[in-house]
Amino acid sequence: MKELEEGSALQLDFTKLQKIARTEALVVPVVVQDADSKEVLVVAYANQLALEKTLETGIATFWSTSRNELWIKGATSGDMLKIDEVRVNCEQNSLLYLVRMMGGGVCHTKDAAGKTRPTCYYRAIKEGKLVHRDEDHHEGPTIFQDQG
Amino acid sequence: MKELEEGSALQLDFTKLQKIARTEALVVPVVVQDADSKEVLVVAYANQLALEKTLETGIATFWSTSRNELWIKGATSGDMLKIDEVRVNCEQNSLLYLVRMMGGGVCHTKDAAGKTRPTCYYRAIKEGKLVHRDEDHHEGPTIFQDQG
Repeated sequence: MKELEEGSALQLDFTKLQKIARTEALVVPVVVQDADSKEVLVVAYANQLALEKTLETGIATFWSTSRNELWIKGATSGDMLKIDEVRVNCEQNSLLYLVRMMGGGVCHTKDAAGKTRPTCYYRAIKEGKLVHRDEDHHEGPTIFQDQG
Repeated sequence: MKELEEGSALQLDFTKLQKIARTEALVVPVVVQDADSKEVLVVAYANQLALEKTLETGIATFWSTSRNELWIKGATSGDMLKIDEVRVNCEQNSLLYLVRMMGGGVCHTKDAAGKTRPTCYYRAIKEGKLVHRDEDHHEGPTIFQDQG
């Protein structure tokens, strides 16, 4: 279990944008939102090429700021994101991809039942701690408990 | 009329994150979403102080990366944003503020009727051009036309 991803300690990484800047990648943040549920799924980054590919193929494409390469989200797992609409903000310095999931979830983490989480925003801050949104009830067995 | 904000030409500013990095501000991107309509309203940035103020006061607070100062959105206009929940992503390098509008809209731009736009994402990319989402029908008079 990775504490950063599963734990209740708030330890925000405020350095990521500085790290992106150091790679000299020219990217904008992209908010990815489920076109049906309206849930915000993830924030990623796109450069000109990633946006062009997204518009051309209709599949959500980003620029991986860690690997410095084009990143078709879910290309290996099959959990790709079909584009419903691409929106632009007033100042044209960010994007909003409205998407429909073609496979499982979007997050690279898995819930207690081993299922890919649909959204990366599965925790909320409550009284200074991180609380899992779907794990408010610690008393009983989890709904997704494996019966096998 | 500012072409960047009202026009149909896609001219994304891919340099903003580099500019933020140059200020050496340690910030994370914050997606701001309407808790009721689920509309994504704006992407802004928060440092540790802005997050603390947000949690303390229950009012969405950011770090202005252009003015390098704490920014209580809507403090001057009265269009502040009441926090419903603050969520954190898996890797703890971005935030999601679920909010309720206390005044008018969130965007600094105004629609054709002079009303503050609720969201900054009022345009979508269609065939390489920006199209106003609420202005799909160019034939008739606009719904918001001033009768005065």
